[in-house]
Amino acid sequence: MDVNIYRVPMSGPEDVSGLKKLVDSGEIKPEEIVAVLGKTEGNGCVNDFTRGYATQSFKLYLSRELDKSMDEIGETVAFVMSGGTEGVMSPHATIFTKKQIEAEEKDEKSLALSVGFTKEFLPEEMGRMEMVKEVKRVVLELMKETGIENKEDVHFVQIKTPLLTSDRINDAYSRGKDVAVEDTYKSMGYTRGASALGVALALGEIEESKVTNDSILHDWNLYSNIASTSAGVELLNCEIILLGNSKKSVSKYRIGHSVMKDSIDLEAVIESMNDAGLEVDKLPTEEQKSRIVNILAKAEASPDGYVRDRRTTMLTDSDINHTRQARSVVNAVISSIVGDPMVYVSGGAEHQGPAGGGPIATIIEK
Amino acid sequence: MDVNIYRVPMSGPEDVSGLKKLVDSGEIKPEEIVAVLGKTEGNGCVNDFTRGYATQSFKLYLSRELDKSMDEIGETVAFVMSGGTEGVMSPHATIFTKKQIEAEEKDEKSLALSVGFTKEFLPEEMGRMEMVKEVKRVVLELMKETGIENKEDVHFVQIKTPLLTSDRINDAYSRGKDVAVEDTYKSMGYTRGASALGVALALGEIEESKVTNDSILHDWNLYSNIASTSAGVELLNCEIILLGNSKKSVSKYRIGHSVMKDSIDLEAVIESMNDAGLEVDKLPTEEQKSRIVNILAKAEASPDGYVRDRRTTMLTDSDINHTRQARSVVNAVISSIVGDPMVYVSGGAEHQGPAGGGPIATIIEK
Amino acid sequence: MDVNIYRVPMSGPEDVSGLKKLVDSGEIKPEEIVAVLGKTEGNGCVNDFTRGYATQSFKLYLSRELDKSMDEIGETVAFVMSGGTEGVMSPHATIFTKKQIEAEEKDEKSLALSVGFTKEFLPEEMGRMEMVKEVKRVVLELMKETGIENKEDVHFVQIKTPLLTSDRINDAYSRGKDVAVEDTYKSMGYTRGASALGVALALGEIEESKVTNDSILHDWNLYSNIASTSAGVELLNCEIILLGNSKKSVSKYRIGHSVMKDSIDLEAVIESMNDAGLEVDKLPTEEQKSRIVNILAKAEASPDGYVRDRRTTMLTDSDINHTRQARSVVNAVISSIVGDPMVYVSGGAEHQGPAGGGPIATIIEK
Amino acid sequence: MDVNIYRVPMSGPEDVSGLKKLVDSGEIKPEEIVAVLGKTEGNGCVNDFTRGYATQSFKLYLSRELDKSMDEIGETVAFVMSGGTEGVMSPHATIFTKKQIEAEEKDEKSLALSVGFTKEFLPEEMGRMEMVKEVKRVVLELMKETGIENKEDVHFVQIKTPLLTSDRINDAYSRGKDVAVEDTYKSMGYTRGASALGVALALGEIEESKVTNDSILHDWNLYSNIASTSAGVELLNCEIILLGNSKKSVSKYRIGHSVMKDSIDLEAVIESMNDAGLEVDKLPTEEQKSRIVNILAKAEASPDGYVRDRRTTMLTDSDINHTRQARSVVNAVISSIVGDPMVYVSGGAEHQGPAGGGPIATIIEK
Repeated sequence: MDVNIYRVPMSGPEDVSGLKKLVDSGEIKPEEIVAVLGKTEGNGCVNDFTRGYATQSFKLYLSRELDKSMDEIGETVAFVMSGGTEGVMSPHATIFTKKQIEAEEKDEKSLALSVGFTKEFLPEEMGRMEMVKEVKRVVLELMKETGIENKEDVHFVQIKTPLLTSDRINDAYSRGKDVAVEDTYKSMGYTRGASALGVALALGEIEESKVTNDSILHDWNLYSNIASTSAGVELLNCEIILLGNSKKSVSKYRIGHSVMKDSIDLEAVIESMNDAGLEVDKLPTEEQKSRIVNILAKAEASPDGYVRDRRTTMLTDSDINHTRQARSVVNAVISSIVGDPMVYVSGGAEHQGPAGGGPIATIIEK
Repeated sequence: MDVNIYRVPMSGPEDVSGLKKLVDSGEIKPEEIVAVLGKTEGNGCVNDFTRGYATQSFKLYLSRELDKSMDEIGETVAFVMSGGTEGVMSPHATIFTKKQIEAEEKDEKSLALSVGFTKEFLPEEMGRMEMVKEVKRVVLELMKETGIENKEDVHFVQIKTPLLTSDRINDAYSRGKDVAVEDTYKSMGYTRGASALGVALALGEIEESKVTNDSILHDWNLYSNIASTSAGVELLNCEIILLGNSKKSVSKYRIGHSVMKDSIDLEAVIESMNDAGLEVDKLPTEEQKSRIVNILAKAEASPDGYVRDRRTTMLTDSDINHTRQARSVVNAVISSIVGDPMVYVSGGAEHQGPAGGGPIATIIEK
Repeated sequence: MDVNIYRVPMSGPEDVSGLKKLVDSGEIKPEEIVAVLGKTEGNGCVNDFTRGYATQSFKLYLSRELDKSMDEIGETVAFVMSGGTEGVMSPHATIFTKKQIEAEEKDEKSLALSVGFTKEFLPEEMGRMEMVKEVKRVVLELMKETGIENKEDVHFVQIKTPLLTSDRINDAYSRGKDVAVEDTYKSMGYTRGASALGVALALGEIEESKVTNDSILHDWNLYSNIASTSAGVELLNCEIILLGNSKKSVSKYRIGHSVMKDSIDLEAVIESMNDAGLEVDKLPTEEQKSRIVNILAKAEASPDGYVRDRRTTMLTDSDINHTRQARSVVNAVISSIVGDPMVYVSGGAEHQGPAGGGPIATIIEK
Repeated sequence: MDVNIYRVPMSGPEDVSGLKKLVDSGEIKPEEIVAVLGKTEGNGCVNDFTRGYATQSFKLYLSRELDKSMDEIGETVAFVMSGGTEGVMSPHATIFTKKQIEAEEKDEKSLALSVGFTKEFLPEEMGRMEMVKEVKRVVLELMKETGIENKEDVHFVQIKTPLLTSDRINDAYSRGKDVAVEDTYKSMGYTRGASALGVALALGEIEESKVTNDSILHDWNLYSNIASTSAGVELLNCEIILLGNSKKSVSKYRIGHSVMKDSIDLEAVIESMNDAGLEVDKLPTEEQKSRIVNILAKAEASPDGYVRDRRTTMLTDSDINHTRQARSVVNAVISSIVGDPMVYVSGGAEHQGPAGGGPIATIIEK
């Protein structure tokens, strides 16, 4: 297997020119694209339509390029658009290509990935055990498909989940069902949390018996160190991208990860670089920075409102949603270290890393 | 002269309990207080009433404690409340006390400060040359009062300026006058910029002849490296706190500064620590962190929307004002380095440092 | 009893000049003030400090005027500040004075009122049956005090309730207690709802047996037609103002009420005018408009997101809280009918009128 | 000419199912569609991508239905998406079809319309005289095309204009040009204002000599009573829909208009109904309401912040843009009268009606 990564800036949710340029120049073969991971400039909350708009735009472009219907494109490529580019975060897309090639297994492990989809969820299943179990099932399949035997070699599992809307909630009620939560904004936390717990179960990070409907969004001791989940109104199933290192890959890239204990955990950023193989002394050098392809991180407000024993106002600010603020903070910390604000930070880290913190992964050129 | 600094958390704009505790314990003599520099949890924009509320609350407390009228308190103590604690920034007040003592001039320079007030401005004077010149006049007076002869020894000049409101604009119109700008939110930039240019002129940072009404908020090459200005609806004059190092002070603190070139300029944060005397190797140690009393910085969105050649969306986000986003970013960068989110970052750095950047000062215990 | 009402504009939360003018001219005797009902220009949500700021400012003014401590003022006058003046709503205060006079009981009923306070609530009691029962107790006391025997003669019960903050929630947890809801913004709904149910029980509008912790914010069939409750961070108990008509009052005013079925229920606005005695034909004449002293109404987003079978986006807009939008709508409807945007509309009508609607009262000069 | 109108709800910006249903049932022939006028649920400000998303979705649907490229669709159909459905405004699209039929000229005038496009504007031309003149030229062409000789028979001219973005401003600067205004949000006002003045000139509502670059957004005495302009990031030219009554039309609809003097001008709403022919007595009856097809109105905050001599806080609220608030108010007033929140209100009425007011048109079934 060979895996390549390309990071392109976007001038708006509809801007596919970065990808087009790479395709036109022959650098990317569009049929090898397996995933597009985007940061789009909406509010990252319920009514963020930039995710759907970017997805529609990328599908439309690839549909023409590959002469397939947009639905067919959607069945083979995972489009995970994460909304919210607060602070200095720069809108962009990370494009993953993959091709099967004949090659001997190597000693050194390299970047490998697989993409998969769960079934579509009913409103009453969202943010509940049905979602947890279905995500677990697909993650285990994807590990096998990626040729990763050792769970330690999985470094990042990115999931796009659906959320509840007023219409979906009314639909469940009309069929005599209830839902995990009535607040549509809050439902994003439930679906993000449930799918993260699915990853944690798949990778044996937590005990199966401890996960119930009641523990979702309540027992913060249950979490995955490598799940990164993001909710969007534009889908009904989960789209999953599993990233790890494998001897079966000949990619020139490698991935490592760490866990931020809170949103200003500078040390964890460095650790994820070192885990990928950079050997950083306190802060990366210019040469080391230039080898970083992208950093993928999750951000969330601390549930008790405190960071390093200091009161913050993210949770009591009724004008700006706390996920918007958390993204801005984590992106700023990472940007200041790598000297580039075009890194991927996604908001809402429920059951992803410890409360108030979140997973972080670094992909480097070897 | 002896100068002391106390940083106290605030649980809301009306919370004076941190100060009260220090007064009750005898650590602070209320009559020695010369300035209160607060970060309050409003939006930091036009309709941020947390600044006025905090000011009223502190005045009310000191009025009872010192048995003076609130107006009398306002004439001797500078209350500079800067609104906006986005991201992880923790609401707090920094209280400065000063007393004249008999002491020989020392070889080593230590923290010194003075506080002053301009006249009240008419709406038509706000954000214009009248403000520039009046600020310059008071800054020069304050240098003298602080016993600082060398302009290099001034490290931070904090100014609270008024802004235009609909009523004030209508008042100017009713008298046949026009105003610098009609947009009330934008007027905050004009008054911040004009008062910063007043500092720059006082300290000889720029040429007098280049500053005109037209260059205010247009010629970004004109700026001060040490001015920090903040606008609020609750006053009509400027309140000025000048901070520097002087041989005439016996304070146990010292101040240093640097200039952030952009909002993720981690290196400038370290430089300001070193300028104060910390001798940091790449990142501060725990011992060094513990000697930092507070960091004072300015933040602003880059006027062209780009940071390190990457497009950001701060200026085109019509839901969150860009000053709110800029504060969050700069606070996050500093917090991650000092391991404490309770640092002072104020938004809107027009003519304060280069475009998109801003001054930063560190006060340490020697 | 004689009761008078004065409506004064406010140029900011700290502006008491409207009241001062009436006091200085002798029109109001400050010792007769029993309640101040304000619309202040914050966001009306968790971090709205304009309510506390206005309260502090009014107390400070009355404290000087009456030579009493601010605490003493707080014990005799109810300050109910409702935040949020979205759309064209104009910030103002309605001041109620009351004096006991010797007078024969009249045939005609006139405006009468009483003011009372509940005990302070613990975080774990807020939004729960403890609050419901305590409010009921005080409302029944106030009816007696106002000389109203017939429940139909009570037309409006305005309550200011506390809410949960991060600190209060942490406090409950530290004592091994849980809270009604963890989301601080959402807690405002719980305390508003619980206190409204207290009114409904006191006035026999609903059956006692149906109200439990579980029915609060779930069973929307339970509601009061005359409760108007508003939450604020600045208090821990409930402040209650009961308004009705009584033969024991010689006031020149009278109150009537109706219930808006949804937020654009123009007909209910007219009904409340007629209930007060205006005899409006479709729309009020200029003469009739001039007799309206103030209109008091509650607003909320329809819980299913639909108004007249049309989808609205209030509940899915993650940038503007739905209470802010609902206030704007109801105020606009009323303003267009009375030709004056300075009317009182308070947000969040949980258990106050039917789902999506809310009580409305009109006070007229007879 | 025959003209038909269809109003369909939208469940999101990408929802074309309402149109699809009408096409599938044969009620609409897709080749007869000339304009789609949408209210989409973004913030209606700079970063509102719901307008582009809806346009792309409608083009995509019609492209498949008519077997034409999306660009070809864009050249024949005007897609005017107005963002912002604050308050109870319900997202929807109004679809206009037109066909040329042989028919004798009738005595009675009926609804007629034409659609046209200006050239694409350079950033330095936006919001300036170049835009004014080009819009005037196209409006005059459209009148001729619609068969309207008498200017009084034009009742509504809807225009979609471009706006300035950071990138467009930088582009102008790079070519040594300046722009009308640097603030991207504010640029929406300039392009809306300039294109409205183009309509006013075309219809002889104002004197040609009074309109200069300096009068745009300054001289509020210059305005059109029938222009309705809306800005969006997704286009570079203006799209214009001219609506009026003509003897050459056999449409079963008729249009009338009036001008709201301020945002709560209930009387003007009634006048526009009467101008269309409804004969309303104070308030419309249920039968009259049922004949209203749609109401089209413009909304803006009063530039001095006052409505009926009362201070409002729209202009000083730094958390919610004033256009968002103004839309909510005007929609609420109209909705309460017609009993339906699915009416079209577009924000930003610069030079459209008097300051703080705006044009309003009613289309009825005869």
